[in-house]
Amino acid sequence: MSDPRALSGYWLRDNCPCAECRDAGNGQKLFQITDLPADLAVRESTEQDGHLEVLWSDGHRSRYPLARLAADTVDNGDPDDPEGPSAAARHPGDHRTEAAKRFWHAADFAAGIPEAHWDAYLADPAERAAVLRAVRHLGFAVLRGVPTADRQVLAVARSFGHVRVTNYGELFDVRVEPDPNNLAFTSAAITPHTDNPYRDPVPTLQLLHCLENAAEGGDSGLVDGFAAADLLRTEAPEDFALLTRTPVPFVFRDRTTELHAERPLIETDALGRIREIRFNNRSIGTLRLPAADLDAFYAAYRRFAAITLRPELLLAFRLDPGDCLVFDNTRLLHARTAFDRDGRRHLQGCYADLDSLISTLAVLDRHTAALDTLQDLFEGEGAAEYLGEKVTQAEHMLQAAVLAHRDGAPPHLVAAALLHDVGHFHGTVTGSQPMAGTDNRHSHTGADRLARWFGPEVTEPIRLHVAAKRYLCAVEPEYRAGLSEASEYTLQVQGGPMDAEEAAAFAALPGAADAVAVRRWDDLAKTADADTPGFAHFRPLLAGLLAADPGR
Amino acid sequence: MSDPRALSGYWLRDNCPCAECRDAGNGQKLFQITDLPADLAVRESTEQDGHLEVLWSDGHRSRYPLARLAADTVDNGDPDDPEGPSAAARHPGDHRTEAAKRFWHAADFAAGIPEAHWDAYLADPAERAAVLRAVRHLGFAVLRGVPTADRQVLAVARSFGHVRVTNYGELFDVRVEPDPNNLAFTSAAITPHTDNPYRDPVPTLQLLHCLENAAEGGDSGLVDGFAAADLLRTEAPEDFALLTRTPVPFVFRDRTTELHAERPLIETDALGRIREIRFNNRSIGTLRLPAADLDAFYAAYRRFAAITLRPELLLAFRLDPGDCLVFDNTRLLHARTAFDRDGRRHLQGCYADLDSLISTLAVLDRHTAALDTLQDLFEGEGAAEYLGEKVTQAEHMLQAAVLAHRDGAPPHLVAAALLHDVGHFHGTVTGSQPMAGTDNRHSHTGADRLARWFGPEVTEPIRLHVAAKRYLCAVEPEYRAGLSEASEYTLQVQGGPMDAEEAAAFAALPGAADAVAVRRWDDLAKTADADTPGFAHFRPLLAGLLAADPGR
Repeated sequence: MSDPRALSGYWLRDNCPCAECRDAGNGQKLFQITDLPADLAVRESTEQDGHLEVLWSDGHRSRYPLARLAADTVDNGDPDDPEGPSAAARHPGDHRTEAAKRFWHAADFAAGIPEAHWDAYLADPAERAAVLRAVRHLGFAVLRGVPTADRQVLAVARSFGHVRVTNYGELFDVRVEPDPNNLAFTSAAITPHTDNPYRDPVPTLQLLHCLENAAEGGDSGLVDGFAAADLLRTEAPEDFALLTRTPVPFVFRDRTTELHAERPLIETDALGRIREIRFNNRSIGTLRLPAADLDAFYAAYRRFAAITLRPELLLAFRLDPGDCLVFDNTRLLHARTAFDRDGRRHLQGCYADLDSLISTLAVLDRHTAALDTLQDLFEGEGAAEYLGEKVTQAEHMLQAAVLAHRDGAPPHLVAAALLHDVGHFHGTVTGSQPMAGTDNRHSHTGADRLARWFGPEVTEPIRLHVAAKRYLCAVEPEYRAGLSEASEYTLQVQGGPMDAEEAAAFAALPGAADAVAVRRWDDLAKTADADTPGFAHFRPLLAGLLAADPGR
Repeated sequence: MSDPRALSGYWLRDNCPCAECRDAGNGQKLFQITDLPADLAVRESTEQDGHLEVLWSDGHRSRYPLARLAADTVDNGDPDDPEGPSAAARHPGDHRTEAAKRFWHAADFAAGIPEAHWDAYLADPAERAAVLRAVRHLGFAVLRGVPTADRQVLAVARSFGHVRVTNYGELFDVRVEPDPNNLAFTSAAITPHTDNPYRDPVPTLQLLHCLENAAEGGDSGLVDGFAAADLLRTEAPEDFALLTRTPVPFVFRDRTTELHAERPLIETDALGRIREIRFNNRSIGTLRLPAADLDAFYAAYRRFAAITLRPELLLAFRLDPGDCLVFDNTRLLHARTAFDRDGRRHLQGCYADLDSLISTLAVLDRHTAALDTLQDLFEGEGAAEYLGEKVTQAEHMLQAAVLAHRDGAPPHLVAAALLHDVGHFHGTVTGSQPMAGTDNRHSHTGADRLARWFGPEVTEPIRLHVAAKRYLCAVEPEYRAGLSEASEYTLQVQGGPMDAEEAAAFAALPGAADAVAVRRWDDLAKTADADTPGFAHFRPLLAGLLAADPGR
């Protein structure tokens, strides 16, 4: 594996992680595949310190972590076999095909359906991740206790992604209408189907928020379309294959809209894996095929339709006011029973897309992993001595956070105080080396590391907290007099007090005041044997900061 | 062909146009395919009056226009041959594959690129249709003179569809940024690529609106990715096939986003036709395949990439302030040359989707067809005598419109006056039959026919204009005294004057006042030999009403 002759040259070079090849900030590649020479070859390669170092024929040098190469390399396996054990390993980021799903029958939810209360979903990242993971794996989840306010369904969609506007508007009201342009807006029963098959791209998620349901009837139902297609594949493989290769015209037409899409009822990916179901007889247009092909298509279609109606597949439940159902419109078929047309039943719905939902889930998982990493640092390395002070590094940072909290600092400054010395951890220069006369620039290292997770309101005070000491020494003689012996020593390593010009420039920086505040808590946080809460105490505060999405 | 034994039974029944099977308003089917019996068969069939009438084994009766059946029936042709002459005929509604596109090289635009001025685009449906048709067929068009206002690009998107919000927001600013999360936000050259390949569904349209372009460099380029893929298919069919069947991981990751999609660089539909290009080396993740497969993939990928860089494919042009480029992000690759990073260049962009754009085009085409139909009626049938009046039907309606316009009526009432007797045309009961003692209910027939195209503000006064006469006769004795002889005769056929209760109910209807106004112009519009403009004069007014989209 680590023998580069066994690797594909262009693949290896395309994955070069160096700063010249890849933007450090966003990870995007900075070259085009055509920039690489036609005769690219490995000139030299060596393996050391857990890395493969390659000198290329064009003079470029690459350095790959061996562990990463091992994870990304597939030595064997039949690429045409979607069921092969290596299929999932070969496509770790693919979340749309059956490989990433758990098929279900109604009985699988005998103990309850995936659900969460809206307040818990908002407050607790773990709860939020569980809901989104259910949508990813099972195709749906129900939020309970969502305020029964007009347009609230849009807030639910925006909690994980972006609303997809359609000809039905930003949202649509599902209730009996006098002049419906869709059967949905009557009181009729509707058998399992997917929505908007005439759109291409089809909206991949649907939300239905119940505002009122006092009607007799009007219960909801869901069917796992992937599980149904899987049954068809098992019971009638020829029919399955026919449905995957027959484009079906779907049509919607009203006064202001005329949508056409042609897609198969069961769409598979290039490896033959199920990835999308379109199923809606109401809007199937006229297929134009020779009669024999039509007979075969209709036989397969009817067989598949009959499978979707098997009682054991239908998960039936009732939406009560405040419930919001979120489901995968490329996989689940949804249905409702008929209801008394004079009964009051009112849902508001909207569409959104899976890609953003799964992105949000990935970021939540990344946050959990980040907090786990930080907790490990505090509870592992952090228990080590702190530059000769009477407290450990972890105790020092926890005390700084407690002081910040006691002073009524906002969450981002409590976090900055808590994490201000994270740069001491896991650097190539260790935390004890400043005492040996080397500045490890731990403030920058820490801020850069944390910037993957936290915004500048947390990272910039950390970046400036060493400069803040040099600043305070310049402008407050009594501050310098109060420094500990170790701190006075490191001051020299860090460049000594600022001169007047440096101090003025520092004071003008946007994060200067926050950095000075962090610095003062830093200086005070050296009490031996203080009774300080552990890292876990601060996780909710950090989680709240991680979740604050400046882009939305 | 009209022999039903040559047709597929379930297909034929699935396409039954009767009111029980299909909603008259929106054309949606009112049954599920599983509602049809397992042993469905034709019991009897007859052909008459240009229709095929079928009595089914379950007792249902269907009646099909033979011309329609002929158009929808495919007697022969190899369904696996995408190049077959019948492929387009078999998929008339499919607009996403190469079958619906015209491939191009840069030289094809030597005489100019598809463009229109924003004002003309807004004012003239034909201009608007031409722009949208260019995007559909060629993949792009440029609007000139779009106001260089912040967020104006959203108005352009909403002129034909819906904005697709992404992690970059509702819109994004393309200019040099201090801490870019994407190479787009630097001054670097960018080779031809598609955007957002890590989204699934990918945004199918992109808009780029130039607000400022005073920089040296920063020119735009477009490449027809379908044409490039077609070249690859011709020159290296194995490479083409490999790229269509290899899912490629695309990744985007920043602090708040983590998007993964796995799709081939060239996606074909179930019939092997090119339907989507994803091409962006910046965000291609790490492929996990055996080394030999990687070598083959990279060879094919590099060959395709080299084709996209052929100078003859690159259409280069410069966006000036006020220009808005609209292009198909599933087909065209876009590029830009490097620019002076201190030069001022500012584009605003957003994403949208092709399905709505093509829907808008279809509706515009439908409007043109509607106006053509109405013009034919006015100039054909309309030249016939009008119930014994001294004017033809067309002259009568044109005069009514002129009177409405003269009285300062709003466009919808001028249209209602112009079209109030359309129900006399093309009915199974002809316009002269009321004189034989039969009410042809022409007000309802006309309103219903027009409702396919016009809103209730036009159709409801037409629907009520006969009732308005009965109302006026009840409440204004002098009105009845002024009726023409023919009009007095038809009053009796129509039910005579309203009684007091009917009149009160009528007056309470929302459209009553408008209907009375139309009625008065109707009564006056019987001047022989008046100099009245023709139907063409009113087309722009009608076009404006057709384009008013209540849903947006």
